[in-house]
Amino acid sequence: MESSRDGLAMVRLNEVRRNEVAVEAPQAFDAGLAFIGVIRTPWTSRLDCPRQGRDDGPICRIEVSEPWVAALDGIEAFERIEVLYWLHESRRDLVRQSPANDGATRGTFALRSPVRPNPIGTALVTLVRREGPALLVRGLDCLDMTPLIDLKPDRCLFTPLAPPQPGDFETG
Amino acid sequence: MESSRDGLAMVRLNEVRRNEVAVEAPQAFDAGLAFIGVIRTPWTSRLDCPRQGRDDGPICRIEVSEPWVAALDGIEAFERIEVLYWLHESRRDLVRQSPANDGATRGTFALRSPVRPNPIGTALVTLVRREGPALLVRGLDCLDMTPLIDLKPDRCLFTPLAPPQPGDFETG
Repeated sequence: MESSRDGLAMVRLNEVRRNEVAVEAPQAFDAGLAFIGVIRTPWTSRLDCPRQGRDDGPICRIEVSEPWVAALDGIEAFERIEVLYWLHESRRDLVRQSPANDGATRGTFALRSPVRPNPIGTALVTLVRREGPALLVRGLDCLDMTPLIDLKPDRCLFTPLAPPQPGDFETG
Repeated sequence: MESSRDGLAMVRLNEVRRNEVAVEAPQAFDAGLAFIGVIRTPWTSRLDCPRQGRDDGPICRIEVSEPWVAALDGIEAFERIEVLYWLHESRRDLVRQSPANDGATRGTFALRSPVRPNPIGTALVTLVRREGPALLVRGLDCLDMTPLIDLKPDRCLFTPLAPPQPGDFETG
């Protein structure tokens, strides 16, 4: 990477832009996450990542670590999987952001920006195949080496196996 | 609640069932979560919660805490919102589970059970209206007083505002 791009990257990645609003970043934490694997993608800079994953995007590799590999059993039955991952390079202190860097801002919760108080990314991916402890999928948008937090069947494909509960029938 | 139900609840909520497989629960953590609010729902016992939220379910109230209230600005534009929450009563050590308690098990990542190494729930909810720091929504399935982690516009309704990046155009 050229040094001029390094300089640009520093600005584009971590600055507070015009009209953006920062608060004190969370200092004390209320719960802890244990990374359960890592995601391998073609993108090594946030400036190259897709802004959103696409169904016809490149195959990425989700590598699950022990002792969680056995937790994959049965996942092959689902064509689409929800992936949760930790956006480890993101600042966590912006309440208003200017994605286009044009002075116009929106609240963080009205954006899918990686910058958020708890920088968790969610994606719905297509499962291409499983290779032992790894899933090959399409539809991701994250950096290479992004820490993995969770995998779940797509809610639309999943039917609960547990016995019915009263809340199942509540409307209002 | 009757004491007989208390006994049943202890068993149904926290036991390891026949053929389920537990590992050592995560001890050291890799990242920290800061709760940003709380979710108020009609359900005070996990035995009463819906197994999945429904679009015509009761209105629930997502209460955002300071300093994150300003981060809601603009969220009213989205009819559907993705909600991330912390399943604070869930054990974290099962790799295989038997939802029907019938001896048949599946891997945790092939289930949407609240029991997972990082117990984060995700829901797509319909926004009924905003009331200051609170959102009234339908479609949740979680316990009353569940800690809130994040809010994002539904990916299908959101168009990125940031400038295009190379990864946007990559297929494979």
